[in-house]
Amino acid sequence: MTCELCELRNETVLWQDRRCRVVLVGDADHPGYCRVVWGKHVREMTDLTKSQRAHYMNVVYSLEQALRALMKPYKINLASTGNRIPHLHWHVVPRFEDDVHFPASIWNAAKHAGAVHPVDRESLVQALYEILGGRRKT
Amino acid sequence: MTCELCELRNETVLWQDRRCRVVLVGDADHPGYCRVVWGKHVREMTDLTKSQRAHYMNVVYSLEQALRALMKPYKINLASTGNRIPHLHWHVVPRFEDDVHFPASIWNAAKHAGAVHPVDRESLVQALYEILGGRRKT
Repeated sequence: MTCELCELRNETVLWQDRRCRVVLVGDADHPGYCRVVWGKHVREMTDLTKSQRAHYMNVVYSLEQALRALMKPYKINLASTGNRIPHLHWHVVPRFEDDVHFPASIWNAAKHAGAVHPVDRESLVQALYEILGGRRKT
Repeated sequence: MTCELCELRNETVLWQDRRCRVVLVGDADHPGYCRVVWGKHVREMTDLTKSQRAHYMNVVYSLEQALRALMKPYKINLASTGNRIPHLHWHVVPRFEDDVHFPASIWNAAKHAGAVHPVDRESLVQALYEILGGRRKT
């Protein structure tokens, strides 16, 4: 069986290192919504070593930090579910009291009238490199 | 404003230490569903210190480990949302391919026919103390 997260295609990668990558989802309702995808096909956090987990979560927290600084959301939502694609990926979603799903999860089908909060992609990339380091591909 | 997670009431606490507690939610559809609640009223993971985050996630991973060992779920769902109650708490949900929400999130309103996978509470408590240590109140 092929896994769509094992292949890097049609993705807007904002930052990456040897172990994981930060991807901008491109959700029209939630422009700041990103995923942090583990490179290897691993199912659960407890299938990683302690040091891999720490590395991975440091990237998730850094993304949270960057999104909070740039977007000032009401709340950050973090989720690792993977029921459809059992390959570790963290959803990191800045939430606003006037967004179309609030206070429900963004996976809730029901939407109401609401606002869209944009994020400047270049500023987000720059914030990630400042927090996490690494060399930008130019 | 009062916060319902700042008070420990009507909760089935399975394990706790000075900083956080593991609570059995008591969801009829998802008997293994637990929450790990941070004791203090803190909003986001990035409001904790590095060492607090590591401690907290170690409890989350230990709970995941115990639930995997006892219940053999298809997937573990982890989520920190808090849109309604912005006080840090992790949802830890063992998921099964035949549960009533699968593959949607358990917060999805739509349910279908499915199975309920029980967990033995005493075995879960014992597994948590074995993994995490601490002294049981008797």
